[in-house]
Amino acid sequence: MKTGIAASKGYAIGKAYIKKHVELKISDSRVSDIPLEKEILRRACDKSKHQLHKIKEKALIDLGEEKAQVFDAHLMLFDDPEFIGAIESEIENNSINSLKATHDVTSGYVAIFESMEDEYMRERAADIKDVAKRLMNNLAGIDETIEIDEPDTIVIAHDLTPSDTAQLDRTKVTAFLTNIGGKTSHSAIMARTLEIPAVVGLGDITEAVRSGDLLIVDGIEGTVIIDPDDATIEKYKALKLVFEKEKEELMKLRDIKTRTKSGKRVEVAGNIGKPEDVLKVIENGGDGIGLFRTEFLYMDREEMPTEDEQYESYKFVLEKMGEKPVVIRTLDIGGDKKLPYLVMPEEMNPFLGYRAIRLCLDRTDIFKIQLRALLRASVFGNLKVMFPMISSLDEFLDSKKIVDECKAELKAEGKEYSENVEWGIMIEIPAAAVMADELAKYVDFFSIGTNDLIQYTLAADRMSEKVSYLYDPMHPAVLRLIKMTIDGAHSQGKWCGMCGEMAGDETAISTLVRYGLDEFSMSASSILRAKQLIMNEE
Amino acid sequence: MKTGIAASKGYAIGKAYIKKHVELKISDSRVSDIPLEKEILRRACDKSKHQLHKIKEKALIDLGEEKAQVFDAHLMLFDDPEFIGAIESEIENNSINSLKATHDVTSGYVAIFESMEDEYMRERAADIKDVAKRLMNNLAGIDETIEIDEPDTIVIAHDLTPSDTAQLDRTKVTAFLTNIGGKTSHSAIMARTLEIPAVVGLGDITEAVRSGDLLIVDGIEGTVIIDPDDATIEKYKALKLVFEKEKEELMKLRDIKTRTKSGKRVEVAGNIGKPEDVLKVIENGGDGIGLFRTEFLYMDREEMPTEDEQYESYKFVLEKMGEKPVVIRTLDIGGDKKLPYLVMPEEMNPFLGYRAIRLCLDRTDIFKIQLRALLRASVFGNLKVMFPMISSLDEFLDSKKIVDECKAELKAEGKEYSENVEWGIMIEIPAAAVMADELAKYVDFFSIGTNDLIQYTLAADRMSEKVSYLYDPMHPAVLRLIKMTIDGAHSQGKWCGMCGEMAGDETAISTLVRYGLDEFSMSASSILRAKQLIMNEE
Repeated sequence: MKTGIAASKGYAIGKAYIKKHVELKISDSRVSDIPLEKEILRRACDKSKHQLHKIKEKALIDLGEEKAQVFDAHLMLFDDPEFIGAIESEIENNSINSLKATHDVTSGYVAIFESMEDEYMRERAADIKDVAKRLMNNLAGIDETIEIDEPDTIVIAHDLTPSDTAQLDRTKVTAFLTNIGGKTSHSAIMARTLEIPAVVGLGDITEAVRSGDLLIVDGIEGTVIIDPDDATIEKYKALKLVFEKEKEELMKLRDIKTRTKSGKRVEVAGNIGKPEDVLKVIENGGDGIGLFRTEFLYMDREEMPTEDEQYESYKFVLEKMGEKPVVIRTLDIGGDKKLPYLVMPEEMNPFLGYRAIRLCLDRTDIFKIQLRALLRASVFGNLKVMFPMISSLDEFLDSKKIVDECKAELKAEGKEYSENVEWGIMIEIPAAAVMADELAKYVDFFSIGTNDLIQYTLAADRMSEKVSYLYDPMHPAVLRLIKMTIDGAHSQGKWCGMCGEMAGDETAISTLVRYGLDEFSMSASSILRAKQLIMNEE
Repeated sequence: MKTGIAASKGYAIGKAYIKKHVELKISDSRVSDIPLEKEILRRACDKSKHQLHKIKEKALIDLGEEKAQVFDAHLMLFDDPEFIGAIESEIENNSINSLKATHDVTSGYVAIFESMEDEYMRERAADIKDVAKRLMNNLAGIDETIEIDEPDTIVIAHDLTPSDTAQLDRTKVTAFLTNIGGKTSHSAIMARTLEIPAVVGLGDITEAVRSGDLLIVDGIEGTVIIDPDDATIEKYKALKLVFEKEKEELMKLRDIKTRTKSGKRVEVAGNIGKPEDVLKVIENGGDGIGLFRTEFLYMDREEMPTEDEQYESYKFVLEKMGEKPVVIRTLDIGGDKKLPYLVMPEEMNPFLGYRAIRLCLDRTDIFKIQLRALLRASVFGNLKVMFPMISSLDEFLDSKKIVDECKAELKAEGKEYSENVEWGIMIEIPAAAVMADELAKYVDFFSIGTNDLIQYTLAADRMSEKVSYLYDPMHPAVLRLIKMTIDGAHSQGKWCGMCGEMAGDETAISTLVRYGLDEFSMSASSILRAKQLIMNEE
């Protein structure tokens, strides 16, 4: 038995298929004919684009429009003059071969994106890696396509890229296993989306197993059994049956309004980044959107999104959700999230620096465009707006003043907006949690951002390898601050939600229900299980 | 009237003396004879050393041994092969003239030290600047010595270096004024030490005044009156008299044990960095040492201080203080404080990273040397030890375990230590303040480190220009956490002190007394005034 990291729940019994892995050999060799080398690069780009169009077509049928869009992003990279231009410059300036040039340029991009905390930005790193690998394989003439003929096949690979995963034939692939990766690596996320059991970080599974071996994959415990005996097979067949039955049970919760046993209504909402993510929240029975991270609208672009562009995005999400609440967070840029078109100060401790509401109150030109777009979209649904990184009442009142200015402008222009929008704040700075009872007098709601709240409360950057062990959502001080925040909200008759990772943490839900949390917001795939857990609480 | 920054309290009436200021002209010109250029450098170094020996002799008589030691530090720089070697290398490698080489090398050093938050490290920047200026003046043949003949002279300069200030003849100089500098710049600190009224940051005072002009300096309001009329002179003479009388009154508090009007005993202690700073605390009537920052023993060296070296430093301070308490903080390195001989990880947010107790619990080899030295010194006085950056009980208990190991070792070696040492923690992370009531069950005392506590509570790095406006000691959340900490200590019969800058802030003292703070620790020069303020509280 091999043990790795449980990346996607479920059981599978099937035959191993080891994905070919050809080591890319990248040499330093110089080239003398620069135009020829650039032509080689151009042809490999064309081939890559052709492949991606085919993968996208398949993804559209297998995975739906939303998932297929990732390949649009890949295709766009090939049309990005900066990206391809950087590789061409590398060839020109250093007379280096196209393979090495591609490797060097893309490694640089990947390193930048991987160092960011935001999960969306880390996904971008995976996208670039994926595209880079495809391009380099095409330059080197390597074909790593996975061809599966038989059903109940368990795919085994050193690692799987998003495009590898999208190409998997779900009627035949029953699970996958990889040597590397963690719970939040791209292949793990894809596996959960596809609902294929997966174990990652197995170390040497590609060596330990041969194609054709019979395997049992336990995606809950994170284990793989090689050549199991009959009794073991029977045991896992039974477990698989129970698991699938539970999954059906969960699906029944989709349209149920969650209440605890004692009858308290608790909302279970979804976190989204891109507008189209709303579809997955609806599919998983979300009671609303608890966090729409609007940063995504600002990233991966050459300039600020216009008011109209933002308006369309907010309107799309609000209309899709109908009467259900949609909590949109205003721009939280800075810290580890930078925009290519916005110059930011160099800071020694960016997490303690110029970001989020601090930036917006300083750059009201940027802030007002977003607020106007939000107000204009407000007539299409149940909008609630929240401001990030609030540390004191002044910041909220100053923000509201700017909202009033925007309203006056819109009125003068004869543009509609709703007067029923709720205005709340993120509780993610210790000062705000400590002062929750006072802040609750002025705001309409709180949403606790546990990721930052924990970091600041414990003075520990969870991205720092040396101190990440201190990052603990169940630290008694964190729990006390959460309790103070919820009590503070309730003392003024306001509601309190949570949109940090802790809200979707199965081990924390019971405590949070007991504290009286009114709304849990999490990734769409965790919603149904959370509903079930909450319904079992008093 | 000109207004600047009040840097040192008091009034002065006297005649202006404008210090000569010769602009250094630094050219890029290359040299062909490298050995000759190095010889020029060597001679300028010798001249500088000769001057410094003379300044030191004068400082010994005028200012006493403690203050004179700063010039030992300057002299040591000339004997530091790394420092002079770097300038020589610059000459050799770039065939650059010695003046430009000195300028480039020393600017680099200064920039590094100035970017650090720790005030001792910033003082090092001022030392290097001072030495650099002396050396460059000697290379350029510029003599900027201040020669004062008449009493009641007010010295006016663009800026004053520590050695400029030390050379001032206190029997003749009655105040000084500078164009640049702030409340914490070196010249301001020196002025307070010398008890000479001073106004800094006046912008263009060297232009606005001519030598010989009659001036009134108001070191409380930070103003300068040029050519005052008789009525104004009389008014300021009266103010000066009142001020001097008050100073006398303050000196009477030197040996008084501070109590509030209602009879509560409050200790007013001093913060020190170097062991010899203890003398100034005693001179100012400190009830003890509330914070001995031991980092200084580790800095400005090529290797770790040995157990014996540390033992001697701790013993010196403990013996000087006699029965009075001496709170020594274990090594708080990391963040913005680095040691040349200790490799630290690169972190995105060093303030939220690997520092202080986190480093010590990871590098117990370093920690144990300090703990053994502390234990051995404990027999010479009233020692209390505190651990910095505690975020949870485990860290305190783990530290105490290592203390027990050290005790067992010392016992086995037949070395003495006291069993009466108190073991406390810094409260400077929000989590510790929130959990103070629980932590108080295990520790002997708390000391609130407001500088960090405020930064973390508000998630604002006060060194970041863009967000330093958020750093507010009187923020209601900060005050609540301070109150929680004091109440937590008292609930378990423990005492609570404060050693951050807030403890010496005259506007905060009343609130802190009301909260029940048991001990205030501050820079020596603030002690007497704090005693007076506390005695006026209920």
